[in-house]
Amino acid sequence: MKGLNSPLNRKLRMALIGGAGNAFIGKVHATAGTLDNRADLVAGALSSNASKSQAAAPSFGIPSDRAYASPAELIENESQRPADERIDFVSIATPNYTHFEIAKAALTAGFHVVCDKPMTITVDEAEDLARVVEATGAVFVLMHNYSGYPMIRQLREMIRNDELGDIIAVRANYIQGWLWGWSPGVDPPRGAWKADPQKAGPSGTLGDIGTHAYQLVRYTTGLLPEEVSCNLKTYTPDRALDDYGHATIRFQTGALGLLTFSQVTHGRMNDQLLEIDGSKAAISWRQEDPNQLVVRQFGRPTQVYDRHPGADFNNPSARAASRLPGGHPEAFFEAFANLFRDGFDDMVTSSLGKPFQQRDTIYPNVYDGVEGTFFIQQCLASHDQNGTWISLRHPSAR
Amino acid sequence: MKGLNSPLNRKLRMALIGGAGNAFIGKVHATAGTLDNRADLVAGALSSNASKSQAAAPSFGIPSDRAYASPAELIENESQRPADERIDFVSIATPNYTHFEIAKAALTAGFHVVCDKPMTITVDEAEDLARVVEATGAVFVLMHNYSGYPMIRQLREMIRNDELGDIIAVRANYIQGWLWGWSPGVDPPRGAWKADPQKAGPSGTLGDIGTHAYQLVRYTTGLLPEEVSCNLKTYTPDRALDDYGHATIRFQTGALGLLTFSQVTHGRMNDQLLEIDGSKAAISWRQEDPNQLVVRQFGRPTQVYDRHPGADFNNPSARAASRLPGGHPEAFFEAFANLFRDGFDDMVTSSLGKPFQQRDTIYPNVYDGVEGTFFIQQCLASHDQNGTWISLRHPSAR
Amino acid sequence: MKGLNSPLNRKLRMALIGGAGNAFIGKVHATAGTLDNRADLVAGALSSNASKSQAAAPSFGIPSDRAYASPAELIENESQRPADERIDFVSIATPNYTHFEIAKAALTAGFHVVCDKPMTITVDEAEDLARVVEATGAVFVLMHNYSGYPMIRQLREMIRNDELGDIIAVRANYIQGWLWGWSPGVDPPRGAWKADPQKAGPSGTLGDIGTHAYQLVRYTTGLLPEEVSCNLKTYTPDRALDDYGHATIRFQTGALGLLTFSQVTHGRMNDQLLEIDGSKAAISWRQEDPNQLVVRQFGRPTQVYDRHPGADFNNPSARAASRLPGGHPEAFFEAFANLFRDGFDDMVTSSLGKPFQQRDTIYPNVYDGVEGTFFIQQCLASHDQNGTWISLRHPSAR
Amino acid sequence: MKGLNSPLNRKLRMALIGGAGNAFIGKVHATAGTLDNRADLVAGALSSNASKSQAAAPSFGIPSDRAYASPAELIENESQRPADERIDFVSIATPNYTHFEIAKAALTAGFHVVCDKPMTITVDEAEDLARVVEATGAVFVLMHNYSGYPMIRQLREMIRNDELGDIIAVRANYIQGWLWGWSPGVDPPRGAWKADPQKAGPSGTLGDIGTHAYQLVRYTTGLLPEEVSCNLKTYTPDRALDDYGHATIRFQTGALGLLTFSQVTHGRMNDQLLEIDGSKAAISWRQEDPNQLVVRQFGRPTQVYDRHPGADFNNPSARAASRLPGGHPEAFFEAFANLFRDGFDDMVTSSLGKPFQQRDTIYPNVYDGVEGTFFIQQCLASHDQNGTWISLRHPSAR
Repeated sequence: MKGLNSPLNRKLRMALIGGAGNAFIGKVHATAGTLDNRADLVAGALSSNASKSQAAAPSFGIPSDRAYASPAELIENESQRPADERIDFVSIATPNYTHFEIAKAALTAGFHVVCDKPMTITVDEAEDLARVVEATGAVFVLMHNYSGYPMIRQLREMIRNDELGDIIAVRANYIQGWLWGWSPGVDPPRGAWKADPQKAGPSGTLGDIGTHAYQLVRYTTGLLPEEVSCNLKTYTPDRALDDYGHATIRFQTGALGLLTFSQVTHGRMNDQLLEIDGSKAAISWRQEDPNQLVVRQFGRPTQVYDRHPGADFNNPSARAASRLPGGHPEAFFEAFANLFRDGFDDMVTSSLGKPFQQRDTIYPNVYDGVEGTFFIQQCLASHDQNGTWISLRHPSAR
Repeated sequence: MKGLNSPLNRKLRMALIGGAGNAFIGKVHATAGTLDNRADLVAGALSSNASKSQAAAPSFGIPSDRAYASPAELIENESQRPADERIDFVSIATPNYTHFEIAKAALTAGFHVVCDKPMTITVDEAEDLARVVEATGAVFVLMHNYSGYPMIRQLREMIRNDELGDIIAVRANYIQGWLWGWSPGVDPPRGAWKADPQKAGPSGTLGDIGTHAYQLVRYTTGLLPEEVSCNLKTYTPDRALDDYGHATIRFQTGALGLLTFSQVTHGRMNDQLLEIDGSKAAISWRQEDPNQLVVRQFGRPTQVYDRHPGADFNNPSARAASRLPGGHPEAFFEAFANLFRDGFDDMVTSSLGKPFQQRDTIYPNVYDGVEGTFFIQQCLASHDQNGTWISLRHPSAR
Repeated sequence: MKGLNSPLNRKLRMALIGGAGNAFIGKVHATAGTLDNRADLVAGALSSNASKSQAAAPSFGIPSDRAYASPAELIENESQRPADERIDFVSIATPNYTHFEIAKAALTAGFHVVCDKPMTITVDEAEDLARVVEATGAVFVLMHNYSGYPMIRQLREMIRNDELGDIIAVRANYIQGWLWGWSPGVDPPRGAWKADPQKAGPSGTLGDIGTHAYQLVRYTTGLLPEEVSCNLKTYTPDRALDDYGHATIRFQTGALGLLTFSQVTHGRMNDQLLEIDGSKAAISWRQEDPNQLVVRQFGRPTQVYDRHPGADFNNPSARAASRLPGGHPEAFFEAFANLFRDGFDDMVTSSLGKPFQQRDTIYPNVYDGVEGTFFIQQCLASHDQNGTWISLRHPSAR
Repeated sequence: MKGLNSPLNRKLRMALIGGAGNAFIGKVHATAGTLDNRADLVAGALSSNASKSQAAAPSFGIPSDRAYASPAELIENESQRPADERIDFVSIATPNYTHFEIAKAALTAGFHVVCDKPMTITVDEAEDLARVVEATGAVFVLMHNYSGYPMIRQLREMIRNDELGDIIAVRANYIQGWLWGWSPGVDPPRGAWKADPQKAGPSGTLGDIGTHAYQLVRYTTGLLPEEVSCNLKTYTPDRALDDYGHATIRFQTGALGLLTFSQVTHGRMNDQLLEIDGSKAAISWRQEDPNQLVVRQFGRPTQVYDRHPGADFNNPSARAASRLPGGHPEAFFEAFANLFRDGFDDMVTSSLGKPFQQRDTIYPNVYDGVEGTFFIQQCLASHDQNGTWISLRHPSAR
């Protein structure tokens, strides 16, 4: 396990943007960011309301004088603190439409950024942000958290090692039902902004979870997309944005992909299913059972790979992403924490003035964010043209 | 349980077409047709080769003098037998391209027909057959066997009773892997004709199993289709027909359907999954676990309905299709047998000179066969036009 | 597949004892006995009430003149029929207390016997029956039907081939809940005799399903028992017999076994679970998912073996017990039918005047019946002595 | 969510005993203890070797001057620190045989204690510790971590609310396979002390995991035990302690319990299964799928309760123990953290000079530790007397 015996012999200092009120994702950032004892949460702009931000600070262990009334105030004040006090990075857990401005300001001020997804509302903003990241040389972690699961890492490495052969077909379903009740957080108001085009952007379920499915396919298979045909539906009365849909993807290799995303399937919680067919073997993985990976191969019994850091059949990627022995389940927080941990390594490298590969990271980064916004834009374009095939080629794709 | 206390106080007489050699489906017809002791298998044209037909007859219990060298010989000879000896119906378990001629001849000779699917190669043939069925007043059972599972009947009745509310979305996946090995039967040669366009028709996996998925959706939901967008792939080297694909369907109500069919997914046996989203509840059902139906509804724990003829939560349709108490699993043969049993009821009615509803049967019939061939034709047309939406409206749809 | 190309070139003739009324097990015998077209059901004593027997005959396809008023009448009449007409065997599907007399009479009259379990009420009767079987040289199939599942055959052969190594521990749970409602058959009256010590014998759940678990352990592992410690409970009000219990078994090798049997676990249908730990590998199998066998071995992913007659990892025993390709589920009827089919082979051998191994059969036989009644007797004795260890050694054990 | 708006307006200060080297459980204590930002890990005696303790400190974020060479040194030094600096509690994650001395010293010095299980080697020590806890009024959390799972809390409250009716039977299986390889941690050396009677105490698997199963049954059902019959086995060559066994328990109500514990079942990771039969309903729960609770009741479909803080069917206990929406899986760390959080509440109460119920805590406490050591002692006694029934009544039982 990596520790603070690493060159940068101190814990990183984290600031949280968002997190007050009843959204759960800010708490997840705070918990995951500090899970491995490699960062302290020392500052926050927990709400756009100054008194709410102050009120929430104690439960995050943030001292009152570093509980700011806005991201701008946080960035300005932290920038003026001495180098041995000021934050190293901001973690952005706010509604989509605010990501761009906050992230750009933080980067410009010299801070690394961890940012929730989708990265921005528009492709232009996303491309702008990518240029800023490149110009600053900062670390940028895009929180496509499902990429942090050990068995997803296992799968990715298996594909890279050609254990599945040529990937011919992919099916990724991300099925929820919370539009019938129980919003993503506990109380009804949580996530209300997700239905507001001004705050969520031009897509609903597509942008909220379809992008996760797309990213997971891209992350694990490495297949480059050629074009997409997308059909969206809005079943929820009085809703402005899509809540159900399919995107069919032609990859450049000739492989066919199919994404399904729903937030209107009664009783489904967070059921992300990934099925990948290769010429040598096929796999299945479910987010709600993240510690298992099912591998099928002609002529052999079905193989269920359990996550276990000591098992030979767990490859180095899966082991590095594990904290507990098999059978001691790991879950959502740890996957999140893995992306933080991955980013911390680059922050440490960066702090030593050493270069790191900004593009070729194990964690999702700003280029994936560009591609994600582009994916949303092109899906919407295809849908508007009755499902016509629209190009998915974008220079940012890695 | 229905028995032979019914008005026609005798067992029906069955003839089997096909079944010699290593195809398993003829044996399934023989076993399922006689499972409930309501029919005797008395004649057969088990092979297009006279000596093979003779050789196979004993294992089916068919006497040598009624083991014919061809369907034509069978129909001619049986027609000339006295009424109290001659067969009541033929059961057709031969390659697709032969169905039309055999079924038409049998119907014309006054016999009822049970026929494997897809019903014919072309829509014209199918429509021709429908006219013959109507003209003869015969019973025609199309062997979409998955319609015979008790929990599929349960589901269908639940939808009719509005327990799921408006159906908004449907996903049906039919995933096999046998093109990598283990053909549908045991030995490699089995099912070889399925790869031959002359014998299987113009589609491969689409026609072989995609039609099952389509029929199951139509059977359970009753939704009428508007149009289809279809994309097919052929991944298997040197294969003339499709082996993978998606068909997106817009139903007339605005509901969206998605069918996925594959015969190239390593290690999958016969994994048909049906997921239906309604405005009140959603369900899942897997063919490989046919005795359970999963029902999800906002605000309630997930409900797993077990098949049990004494359970109040099993509706009359499910009970009527059950033979054993819950936990004593029923499976493939029994589902098949249920369609035979359904058809037998109409054969008895017909034998009494009474009318029966030829169109509105609980079993798949000739109209579903027409719609199935039409579905294949339109999917192929859509695929040929790069996935363009093509009409699925056909007057036969019921 | 075995057929009637076998030396005895005709179908066997079967008589059914029991089956009228609402018991489901008679129907199961009738269906399974004729499933493979190797026997015809030609006679029956379906009820101890003559008119009920007559009334039920048509639904079994039994002609009126061979629907007898009692087993005695059946045996007497059938014995007097010409050799080319008379039955070959009787299949006994009546309450426990009647088995002994019927089976003995049938054997003595020269008929083979298929008999439901437990074989008799007392050990004396069982030993008596074994002597009669030996004296007559007849085939005797004891219907421990779970022995007929293909994956149980797979497991048994794997153990014989030392694929699991030394068996060190076994856990077999047979859990039902029907004492809270839904008797084994559909209607409340079904199975009422199972609660009556005069008809079921001195044990309730122990004898009804505990014996199945015991037999399955013995059948698959071949381990010989040394002694048992048994604790029984009766939770159901006003019930005379046990409805819950555990039997701990010390095997002669030092292996430890634990059987759990319950008919009072809410909502459980017929949940028989077998877990066997070997020094090389461990397995799990569930009756309600009979087509899969789970094999675990240190250093390898969990292996799920699907039943598939063409799969190399299915051994000859499993293949011989299969009728359908993998993914086309087989279930309860087929397992039953496999025991019939096994017995038919010996009946054919016997009919040719050739010897067969009466003791070493693949199907459960009269010796297993003796051991089963002995097991019940010794469990009851242990329970009566507060769980003291009681010997399970019996010379019949094979 | 409870936060530091609580009366004690500061984070608690934690010291960790153990954790250096390759044991994983120290890291679990560190992570779980600080997961909710209510405690800081400020001191440690991470190894009994001074230099190892120093070397490990940075990765736990412990400053060098508070990384002690022994528990005694830690306790002495921390006691002398000013009140606003010194630790509030010690968390003991060392081999069993050291618990007693460390815990007693910490309590006597005025610190609260969180202690791994089994609490001590002997009953005398355990009873002594209970007296010390009472005398000091300290908080004592015994780390039976499975008690912290939300669905276990759900179950416990359901039973208290009589939703299961009278509990009639319980089955708890705790099955592992690591004695064939992959010790509880990653590397072979980990957990080596568990096989040494001097360090682990007189029992092996019984004490290591059998006690977890026993505690979970007691915790959820509240049933008081009457007597036990225990049979142990040692299958692993050259092993001094048991590695497999069953304990049958008679509860005072007449309910029957059966515990099974194994560390020799190939390929099983940490498979703890709890099945409870009540007169109104029955449940199943698996530790490896901790977010679901299966509830079965006659006349209803099987109910699968998902953990979800917003679901009405999650009772207050389950909600209070949840951090994330349903479908966002929670796991091992969070269950652990729940016990810390429960204990923190009492530490805060205690710090305010207010009394708290030392006996009736929602977390396992010193009385459960006494009962656990007594359970081990009596199981061993029963085993030594060939499984004779031995009393399990102990005044500490709550």
